[in-house]
Amino acid sequence: MSTIPGRFLTIEGIEGVGKSTQVARLSEGLNERGIAHVLTREPGGTPLAERIREIVLSLDNARGESMPPTAELLLMFAARAVHLTNFVEPSLRAGRWVVCDRFIDATYAYQGGGRRLNAEHIRQLDAMVVGARRPDLTVLLDAPVEQALERARQRNAGAAADRFESERAEFFERVRDAYRARAAAEPTRIAVVDASQSVDRVASQILELLVARSWIS
Amino acid sequence: MSTIPGRFLTIEGIEGVGKSTQVARLSEGLNERGIAHVLTREPGGTPLAERIREIVLSLDNARGESMPPTAELLLMFAARAVHLTNFVEPSLRAGRWVVCDRFIDATYAYQGGGRRLNAEHIRQLDAMVVGARRPDLTVLLDAPVEQALERARQRNAGAAADRFESERAEFFERVRDAYRARAAAEPTRIAVVDASQSVDRVASQILELLVARSWIS
Repeated sequence: MSTIPGRFLTIEGIEGVGKSTQVARLSEGLNERGIAHVLTREPGGTPLAERIREIVLSLDNARGESMPPTAELLLMFAARAVHLTNFVEPSLRAGRWVVCDRFIDATYAYQGGGRRLNAEHIRQLDAMVVGARRPDLTVLLDAPVEQALERARQRNAGAAADRFESERAEFFERVRDAYRARAAAEPTRIAVVDASQSVDRVASQILELLVARSWIS
Repeated sequence: MSTIPGRFLTIEGIEGVGKSTQVARLSEGLNERGIAHVLTREPGGTPLAERIREIVLSLDNARGESMPPTAELLLMFAARAVHLTNFVEPSLRAGRWVVCDRFIDATYAYQGGGRRLNAEHIRQLDAMVVGARRPDLTVLLDAPVEQALERARQRNAGAAADRFESERAEFFERVRDAYRARAAAEPTRIAVVDASQSVDRVASQILELLVARSWIS
């Protein structure tokens, strides 16, 4: 068990900005420094939360029955409550760092910005489920929507899109705007990294953010 | 399509008070009067909501992973949002009565009373999901806990209990108390019927409640 307290890092951004690649690179960087950590994602991250994820993301989860936006929002927070209680909190208490692919900011961006759900409802659920457990650092990978979606299309070629991937560019513009507004409002916690740069450049900028906080050297 | 506007009736009570039997009897009574209606239940009532129900009720939905109480609460409201939007509202708009086995009062009773979850959280979710769509009439079938649980045990003999049925008598005492407190606070909407009476007597008292409101004759 590390003597460094567990830190909670989240990686955010729209489809195609390279979150998975950068999570893997960050994990390499932490491994090189001997920092015990776990990689996880939302929605999901535990068997129970992954079951909820499957319902949220599936395009035809119930023979064509539509998913009301409020239900989507509640399922996202239900999965988050499971993930925080059963995985994130115990990992942090055990001194492990937690690197999470998407977290609370994604809800404000996708359900708030993208689906235009009531922001006050999201804030109430945030207080109910996340409370004081804010990430220590959130990296927002930001790139123009067209560029990111083109990358996502190439990656997904031949694979079926999920309920979010099947949205249009306009939806992702709103998601990106909401992400950037979050970052502007919380500049200490949320660092924006230009994801249109090379993978190496993005990876080193993310590590530099940890160095700047004296969390790694 | 009926010229009478659709009415929304909910039947509440702990396990073993005879809700299913009384829903069936009420349905017979409405049929005899030519009133178009649908029977449904919560959590569930649509294919998508039933998928959420399965996650909420299953005792081993994820190889022993526990269900945090807040996640249970959010899943209940997610299922409710689906059920209201995709089934209850369209049925009422089409002029059909909706008879629902458990609804919002069950959340205050089970998650609020039984699990002692924050009442303000439940009220926020209630406002978010149910809003102004209150039942026109709620029948609370009330009986002593020991009597009800004995009936439930006989009915379920040999069947596996779900996450709620496996709770102890003390839990159901709190659920019953919370149900009765709801009825005391909203006596116009919630009618308490003594479920320790005979099935026939309970069934006729429920029909009398509708006659008293001039909804049937």
